[in-house]
Amino acid sequence: MTLLMNVTDPERLAAFDEILGVAQPGLRIVKPGEAYDPEEIRYLFTWQPLEDWVALPNLEVVFSVSAGVDQFTALPAHIALVKMVDPLNTERVADYVLAACLVGLRDFPRYGEQQRQRLWQPAPGRTIAETRVTVLGLGQTGRAAAAKLVAAGFETSGWARSAHEIEGMTCRSGEAGLTALLAEADIVVCLLPLTEATRGILSKPLFARMKPGASLVHAGRGPQCNFTDLAEALETGQLGNAVIDVFETEPLPKADPCWDLPNCLITPHVAGRTGAETAARNVAQNLARLTAGQELLWRVDRQKGY
Amino acid sequence: MTLLMNVTDPERLAAFDEILGVAQPGLRIVKPGEAYDPEEIRYLFTWQPLEDWVALPNLEVVFSVSAGVDQFTALPAHIALVKMVDPLNTERVADYVLAACLVGLRDFPRYGEQQRQRLWQPAPGRTIAETRVTVLGLGQTGRAAAAKLVAAGFETSGWARSAHEIEGMTCRSGEAGLTALLAEADIVVCLLPLTEATRGILSKPLFARMKPGASLVHAGRGPQCNFTDLAEALETGQLGNAVIDVFETEPLPKADPCWDLPNCLITPHVAGRTGAETAARNVAQNLARLTAGQELLWRVDRQKGY
Repeated sequence: MTLLMNVTDPERLAAFDEILGVAQPGLRIVKPGEAYDPEEIRYLFTWQPLEDWVALPNLEVVFSVSAGVDQFTALPAHIALVKMVDPLNTERVADYVLAACLVGLRDFPRYGEQQRQRLWQPAPGRTIAETRVTVLGLGQTGRAAAAKLVAAGFETSGWARSAHEIEGMTCRSGEAGLTALLAEADIVVCLLPLTEATRGILSKPLFARMKPGASLVHAGRGPQCNFTDLAEALETGQLGNAVIDVFETEPLPKADPCWDLPNCLITPHVAGRTGAETAARNVAQNLARLTAGQELLWRVDRQKGY
Repeated sequence: MTLLMNVTDPERLAAFDEILGVAQPGLRIVKPGEAYDPEEIRYLFTWQPLEDWVALPNLEVVFSVSAGVDQFTALPAHIALVKMVDPLNTERVADYVLAACLVGLRDFPRYGEQQRQRLWQPAPGRTIAETRVTVLGLGQTGRAAAAKLVAAGFETSGWARSAHEIEGMTCRSGEAGLTALLAEADIVVCLLPLTEATRGILSKPLFARMKPGASLVHAGRGPQCNFTDLAEALETGQLGNAVIDVFETEPLPKADPCWDLPNCLITPHVAGRTGAETAARNVAQNLARLTAGQELLWRVDRQKGY
């Protein structure tokens, strides 16, 4: 029974050694650079997909490093895919979304730009209580973020592909529901999973349905945003400002025009981060379940993609 | 009975005409540029103090445009001084403080700086629940801000010159209390009134008592901060970052070195702003009370200075 670790982060490797060493003493953990027989690998812990899945003929389970699993579309269907679930990470993303909404509400990206130009141009702002936020994506993270926005006093609504009912907020689904929420929102937050339906969703047609001058907070996945359209929407003022945490290519290349998006704060994919110990414990828990003949927790529905 | 308006903002002048015209039909309102007999002026609405208070021999009440009244130290003691109280403004400042604390927590000023340098350097952040904030100043605004921080999940404490008891948070007073709170806080928020005791309080000796790498949010008054010491604390990393809304001279002059404070977001005194109608209603209410022989509301204790 061998687990291949396709990560180099020393903190993660140490946590796996420590926690799995106790929980699964019979498990061999192969770290980057160590020799192994491809046939012995039953489990893989990775963020990046392999180029050739056939290279590991006995692979049974892929454990994703994070909640995002859209990169594994080419994974053969007989191999189980498990996403990472971390309550502290969910809380961290929800905190980030609250922070980013307040940054948008009080127009801090614009003041940052004025600071660089040494301009003193105060503008009146709305209060939290006067502000409507809509959260796109009502998975675990979306619901946690929405709950935090409600607690802070924002008038909060949510949208997802399928119908949801959540206390304290209006939930809508479908295209008509999306249009209705976009038209009312002062701030739109994207926490959608990346699927074929959400790829490129943050683009001109969506921005055009938003209130002129509204804010965008994007902590979903990079390929959901058309950055050319985003630049145009920020330049014309269709979007008042934006806070963007995810990009097509990360780290964002030095030459990428996104660095210069106007009235936009860029953060280097910091909304969430799964703790090393949580990751190791989740894998240990699932390996114990496999041994006991139980179903895997947090297994991805490959049809839905999440 | 004449009120002299020492403000030029058209929105404010219109609100006073409309609201006081109805509430106090016998009142004459003198606007900037209009002729008047100095002896007829009984009330003055102003932000700036007069250079010579004797010029208005029958002045009875000065209504300050805002909550800050420290500029009126030379006002003769027989003239009543009334500060502006605006619940919506208090809410606005509290929102700003919550926004600024989250900006500090998630290190957005540093990411702003990295964006300018096209650097992608994610750093792990704490959650709100793991973060201690202490609010210096527990007047109306300080209490409102603290309540909002408590509601958002921050471990919140407060400090004031005199002892306070507020549910959900530790309150301390005196020098020993200040030292204890500063040593524990991840974020220090200044909402103190400007008095001789608080002038220059945000300086090297205070920063040295803070946790290394902690954040500063300053929405009190400009002269409370020694900006040379602030620059040094930010440069050495004694302060991790700062969000500063108030300065010695406002608007901040183009040549002021504050524009270049490292890891510092500067906002152009936007934490609060009293609504024009609220200001007019507050003055109308107090003039009605004077007519009825009642005590003035929101009168400043000249000894305490607030």
